[in-house]
Amino acid sequence: MAEGRVYNFSAGPSQMPLEVLEEIQREMVNYKGCGMSVMEMSHRGKEFMGIANQAEKDLRDIFGVPSDYKVMMSQGGATLMFSSIPLNMLGTKGKADYLVTGQWGEKALKECNKYGTGQAACNSKSTKFTTIPKPSEWKLDPEAAFAHYCDNETVNGVEWGYTPDVGNVPLVADMSSNFCSRPIDVSKHAVVYAGIQKNLGPSGMAVSFIRPDFVDGKNEAKICPTYCSWKTTVDAESMYNTPACFTMYAMAEYLKYTKKIGGVAYWAEQSDKKAGMLYGAIEGSDGFYQCPVAKDARSRMNVPFTIMGGDEVIEKKFLAEAQKQKLFQLAGHRSVGGCRASLYNGMPIEGVSVLTDFMKSFMDENRK
Amino acid sequence: MAEGRVYNFSAGPSQMPLEVLEEIQREMVNYKGCGMSVMEMSHRGKEFMGIANQAEKDLRDIFGVPSDYKVMMSQGGATLMFSSIPLNMLGTKGKADYLVTGQWGEKALKECNKYGTGQAACNSKSTKFTTIPKPSEWKLDPEAAFAHYCDNETVNGVEWGYTPDVGNVPLVADMSSNFCSRPIDVSKHAVVYAGIQKNLGPSGMAVSFIRPDFVDGKNEAKICPTYCSWKTTVDAESMYNTPACFTMYAMAEYLKYTKKIGGVAYWAEQSDKKAGMLYGAIEGSDGFYQCPVAKDARSRMNVPFTIMGGDEVIEKKFLAEAQKQKLFQLAGHRSVGGCRASLYNGMPIEGVSVLTDFMKSFMDENRK
Repeated sequence: MAEGRVYNFSAGPSQMPLEVLEEIQREMVNYKGCGMSVMEMSHRGKEFMGIANQAEKDLRDIFGVPSDYKVMMSQGGATLMFSSIPLNMLGTKGKADYLVTGQWGEKALKECNKYGTGQAACNSKSTKFTTIPKPSEWKLDPEAAFAHYCDNETVNGVEWGYTPDVGNVPLVADMSSNFCSRPIDVSKHAVVYAGIQKNLGPSGMAVSFIRPDFVDGKNEAKICPTYCSWKTTVDAESMYNTPACFTMYAMAEYLKYTKKIGGVAYWAEQSDKKAGMLYGAIEGSDGFYQCPVAKDARSRMNVPFTIMGGDEVIEKKFLAEAQKQKLFQLAGHRSVGGCRASLYNGMPIEGVSVLTDFMKSFMDENRK
Repeated sequence: MAEGRVYNFSAGPSQMPLEVLEEIQREMVNYKGCGMSVMEMSHRGKEFMGIANQAEKDLRDIFGVPSDYKVMMSQGGATLMFSSIPLNMLGTKGKADYLVTGQWGEKALKECNKYGTGQAACNSKSTKFTTIPKPSEWKLDPEAAFAHYCDNETVNGVEWGYTPDVGNVPLVADMSSNFCSRPIDVSKHAVVYAGIQKNLGPSGMAVSFIRPDFVDGKNEAKICPTYCSWKTTVDAESMYNTPACFTMYAMAEYLKYTKKIGGVAYWAEQSDKKAGMLYGAIEGSDGFYQCPVAKDARSRMNVPFTIMGGDEVIEKKFLAEAQKQKLFQLAGHRSVGGCRASLYNGMPIEGVSVLTDFMKSFMDENRK
């Protein structure tokens, strides 16, 4: 680890590969000798257009985006997308299904009800969002305009292990917190969208892959803000207005690095290893550490755990001692409590190794 | 000028003070020894909260924001604000006045008509947006929910020299392209908003100052996207969802620098000088260079001009030769043509001096 750097287990924004940060640092004042910082470039100038075009090409390559799908970059994160989705997709059908497995899916559903009827095809709230309901329990509406799921729930640490089958209804996936951590079957989806601040860059931008029948404006609501119009945005190649240029550039550097080290398959392998190590440490602790999530629904990205049955005093001690080992941002989400370690792409295996070693020694010292 | 850097007259994103860029560069990998880049920080961690709180304090100090006004930071630029304004302000009145003096004001008006009745209280389109209509020509509606104006029209180079008096109707100002270039009488406005990518940082964020009676949700439309709800955003101190953290940090550095060199009064003095030099060169060219904008409406920020009556061949030659003098991004907006020099805070006086010297020698060589 570079001198002075810490292991940052934040749920997002989150640790980035040092090589990406150092490249951005090198180019900060004068990008490739063009005499300007990327922060200063006109978004319509040839240097920045080169960056933006390469970013789109790399996204298409890395994720195998079908050539007729559109790639959209937008501001406002997944939260603004929660509105944009019904505003661009409900059309005359006026209703949509949501497979709710956590707090983010719940928020997306609530937003849909501003513009039509959002229906919970399933909802694991009664399990405190620790499970993924079986397909046999879903109540799908074949007349729904779309069916939405959140592929990884950051707060609750729940991740889908497969692409849900919703028949002919257009499938929409919020992949904000596991985007770029494993391959995606884009063609099974009408829309895949993700904020990039977990596995692919800083905060301030979302990426979407959209099937062509949802960028023709046919289903766009009259009250859709122009900024949220997928047709307007895509027709202007994500430059209807000034995009978040520097954020896009940082993502472009992360994509370049991803290609260099072996693509999304590399990140998938790393994720499996890191998650395996941490869940292994929890399972091997004889109940000292506990993960509340059902085994078949556990996230590779966000691992919530409690200590000694949720003892807040001991958890506080754990967090304080962890920092002495350079292990930062291990507190659970304020709505859930406990601990949570996020294992995004930027977290090296070494960091997880330091964490699991620390967990073992902390357990040995504190077990009653 | 630092080695290899050019003078960048882009209309935005645009040149930034080198000192600000260098500070961001220094701190890129390890911010003040905390072990993380700002790109990696949780927006709810103490380091980033410190940055965000200082940014708000500096905005309040620099612009003398009344203590009861709220400071809001949001993504989506002025374009998303064009929707947010009617969505948060129209209320039961359902109609609003727009003082249209350029393309941006025109877009804002058009967006209002999605949610109510946007009325053009004046419109200088017949002059090709080269004037600011006199108050005696305005048709103000005393029952309007608000009256909107764009303080500086980037494309057309038109700037208000005073705060319009609209009586008791709440006044809303789009200051995207002259924000932080001169003092603002915030208390005369219900809302002041601005994208920061001209005079105060990179693209990807807007700042708003909002009077308390427009953040109580009273006038919020039911169909307002949660992301666009001023009440929701302000109640959560601009962190309802993950903000554009790094962009906010870059702005914070620009604000810190602004305070160091003398506040907005310093930028105002610089702007007056730079604009005086460039308009002087145009006026002193005996018609070789011409600015289409009426003298009392000329912008200190964006100076459009034509050469030899709009000779496209000579203008192309001008742009090519300018680049050899390190003078970049002098082409006019694609919808207007000709040339345009933007003189934002990041452009040093020296850059304008090189430009006016070049303009004189180009004129001497090419005048017929």
